[in-house]
Amino acid sequence: MELLKALQWRYAAKKMNGNAVAQSNVDAIVEAARLAPTSAGIQPFEVIVISNKELREKMLPIANNQKQIVDSSHVLVFAAWDNYTEDRINRYIDHVEAERNMPAGAMNDFRNMLLNNFTKRPAEANFVHTARQAYIGFGMAIAAAAELKVDATPMEGFNNVQLDELLELDKKGLKSVTILPLGQRDPAGDWLVNLKKVRKPKEEFVTELN
Amino acid sequence: MELLKALQWRYAAKKMNGNAVAQSNVDAIVEAARLAPTSAGIQPFEVIVISNKELREKMLPIANNQKQIVDSSHVLVFAAWDNYTEDRINRYIDHVEAERNMPAGAMNDFRNMLLNNFTKRPAEANFVHTARQAYIGFGMAIAAAAELKVDATPMEGFNNVQLDELLELDKKGLKSVTILPLGQRDPAGDWLVNLKKVRKPKEEFVTELN
Repeated sequence: MELLKALQWRYAAKKMNGNAVAQSNVDAIVEAARLAPTSAGIQPFEVIVISNKELREKMLPIANNQKQIVDSSHVLVFAAWDNYTEDRINRYIDHVEAERNMPAGAMNDFRNMLLNNFTKRPAEANFVHTARQAYIGFGMAIAAAAELKVDATPMEGFNNVQLDELLELDKKGLKSVTILPLGQRDPAGDWLVNLKKVRKPKEEFVTELN
Repeated sequence: MELLKALQWRYAAKKMNGNAVAQSNVDAIVEAARLAPTSAGIQPFEVIVISNKELREKMLPIANNQKQIVDSSHVLVFAAWDNYTEDRINRYIDHVEAERNMPAGAMNDFRNMLLNNFTKRPAEANFVHTARQAYIGFGMAIAAAAELKVDATPMEGFNNVQLDELLELDKKGLKSVTILPLGQRDPAGDWLVNLKKVRKPKEEFVTELN
């Protein structure tokens, strides 16, 4: 099975060699995130793809000087909606109706249910929810990179507020949640590459109720 | 690319036909979740695999009577740690040291960093974090099911507190976050199966900073 082989192959590269990832691979990785399922199909997150070197140099101190930020060729930033709003829900439903050639308003029951459930919660609770959806896409991007043998290092260790400022994410109603540098491993300089992959034993991870 | 093809194939089956998913496929789907990367490698979540029919009938009202709970053959419950504790962090590091044939204590710097960062935050903030990690595994399981052409319907719409009680998850320091019934679609009874898959257009999903 491709995915299990890919997940066995991958690891969080600690040293990258600066080689560029092909644009077609970057596109496929982002596409996997775009196809990820999300709650009610709303896709409450976006991906910023940063190849610009100067910008990645500015990101370096914000990300605890983890060198993969600059030794990769592309850094994906997963940014979740800061809140669900009426406008966002309405634009989503309008889009689905149009894509499915339905008359406007055909999905009003579903629309009203979403407006009722999502726009009346506090922004904080909604961000907990949008961030979780972003993590599904994040997982898909990691899986896609592994299948393409593109090294990808999932990162949560960065200053979200500073990164949001640098990328002006607040203007788009977004908050950064994770970073995924894409590049090529440099085995000679990587302390992790030859260490055994460790996961919880299956019996500690799974409970079967038959 | 297998993953993109699989993600195009999949959808959230609304009606399942009761056919059983092969145990080898269930195992592979759970294995994908087990191999998912998580923050610092801690894997702060578990998967409960429920094939027991009586138990799934009890789950039905807890999950808004979504019939896939009983028309699937297996329901996966993703349950995140309710908190990071010293004991959990220490057990994790002890396990990594053992698996990598390191002397006990070899990873004490990393251990202390984790103890310092993770066990001193409020349980609520830690659960926000553990739940996000569970969603990476949830994404991997969805991807694995799709590659195996097993139908899987991601669900958040259930009463978490009631499900935790039914499965006695609090005794294990776990809280349910998502459900994934595995089964086979029943196209004749499924209103969604022939509707176009809708996603945000690429230009609304991705921003490239070159």
